[in-house]
Amino acid sequence: MKDQFLAYIKTLQNTITSTLEEIDGKANFKEDLWERPEGGGGRTRVIENGNVFEKGGVNISSVHGKLPESMQKYFKVNDCDFFACGLSLVLHPKNPFVPTVHANWRYFEMYDADGKIISSWFGGGQDLTPYYLFEEDAIHFHQTCKDACDKHHPEFYPQYKKRCDEYFWNTHREEARGIGGLFFDYLKETDSLSMQDRYDFVTEIGNSFLKGYLPIVEKRKETSFTQEQKDWQEIRRGRYVEFNLIHDKGTLFGLKTNGRIESILMSLPPKVQWHYNHLPKEGSQEGKLVSILKNPKDWV
Amino acid sequence: MKDQFLAYIKTLQNTITSTLEEIDGKANFKEDLWERPEGGGGRTRVIENGNVFEKGGVNISSVHGKLPESMQKYFKVNDCDFFACGLSLVLHPKNPFVPTVHANWRYFEMYDADGKIISSWFGGGQDLTPYYLFEEDAIHFHQTCKDACDKHHPEFYPQYKKRCDEYFWNTHREEARGIGGLFFDYLKETDSLSMQDRYDFVTEIGNSFLKGYLPIVEKRKETSFTQEQKDWQEIRRGRYVEFNLIHDKGTLFGLKTNGRIESILMSLPPKVQWHYNHLPKEGSQEGKLVSILKNPKDWV
Repeated sequence: MKDQFLAYIKTLQNTITSTLEEIDGKANFKEDLWERPEGGGGRTRVIENGNVFEKGGVNISSVHGKLPESMQKYFKVNDCDFFACGLSLVLHPKNPFVPTVHANWRYFEMYDADGKIISSWFGGGQDLTPYYLFEEDAIHFHQTCKDACDKHHPEFYPQYKKRCDEYFWNTHREEARGIGGLFFDYLKETDSLSMQDRYDFVTEIGNSFLKGYLPIVEKRKETSFTQEQKDWQEIRRGRYVEFNLIHDKGTLFGLKTNGRIESILMSLPPKVQWHYNHLPKEGSQEGKLVSILKNPKDWV
Repeated sequence: MKDQFLAYIKTLQNTITSTLEEIDGKANFKEDLWERPEGGGGRTRVIENGNVFEKGGVNISSVHGKLPESMQKYFKVNDCDFFACGLSLVLHPKNPFVPTVHANWRYFEMYDADGKIISSWFGGGQDLTPYYLFEEDAIHFHQTCKDACDKHHPEFYPQYKKRCDEYFWNTHREEARGIGGLFFDYLKETDSLSMQDRYDFVTEIGNSFLKGYLPIVEKRKETSFTQEQKDWQEIRRGRYVEFNLIHDKGTLFGLKTNGRIESILMSLPPKVQWHYNHLPKEGSQEGKLVSILKNPKDWV
């Protein structure tokens, strides 16, 4: 399974980066190969200063070795070996009418002293962070998530949509980071679902990613915008930073387990603003977004 | 003691904000009075878009009531009442040759069921975060800290200077946030030092703040700078954000104990940049700063 999934994310990274380069039309992804001293490594691909993408990363990594102590505590297991691989992406578009998107699909294995798998699971998801709300875009993104889920189980979409709203919640602001999507974790073998079923589901979601995001990029990337709208995007990006540095388990985990800093923090937006007590005008488009973020809704 | 210290920080806030307004010559501090539902409140004063200060806050707060549960765990005490007051300030200058400065002086009391003080202490400090290093500025700032400390105890400066370097350490970057200053906490009564002695020391430090910072502002505020130097400042401000949101106990504590968000996060810089894997050129002024941050030194 680990070879199968690793091969999948390698191909998916190629597909996604080449498609995004084509849409951007100016910037190319810059590749950094890195090695983890304790075992494994990754292929980081970052795009900056494009026509469409101001900054973004589409990274894969595959790491293995002794399970770090902090992770032993987290998973409540003793000293053992592990393997983990995944694809992580974040795209921060230049145009404030194009939403930021984040996605991650990953696979994890833990072994006993004889190298036998004790436990294995998939995790991941994708979510959208708009700066201006177009209901048709939100519906399209969620419908794509739902269609992919529904091919596998009628409960998956409602369940993973709800977990996404719960996970990407900026508690200190009492608002969601964005308008959500899917979030799932610990997808293990069950009586009715084999690991191959799990793989088929997660790769279905991975394959649906461009279908969900690209039409929105195409539709909004040429929309003209004012400096005020750009400022609003940069202020909202501040909330993105706050979530990632204060609450995001993946980011904090990476930082605390000596991950590759630049690959982890590539998720941070290129330009960000913080003003004291900035409040959007009542009845404005900016205010409408915030009110939706404070009360996550069902889009499909 | 609590009335004495509260009166002190009120006066000090007035002195500092009026002096900074004079130097800025354009922007004024905007005042927000706020109340804490559980008891107490604060006086937040924020300056934005000045000639000298791009953003800054000089806040006082005085809060009391039942000690929040998270703080009970932290201080390893049971259900009890507390009182805490302090002054917190952060100034982000426009000119990249003027350093950012942070300071905080605070007093804490905990009570038994009869309202008798179980424990009380002072804490605080001040530290400088330059974007370009001028050795004479670093020496002046540290000399002012040392002079104020030396009036009270020859061990204070070396001890609190060291704690400052240890505290403001961005572990995930393996570098200091800035060039340090003083950091002290849990200054309690001892056989040789009364609470009045502690008060005299902390207020000596508070009174020395403008003496340490203002001459540097005066000397550097008119220096002309390029867009590249401004970009460097905004990139380094990213590290400031990383420290405050990932590591700073005060910030995280405030966020987790339902503090006033806008007063806590006023410490974040107005405009910030994150580039992928940005490295200063070898032998450059930018590179010189980073090498000092990676190897904190003694300035006096």
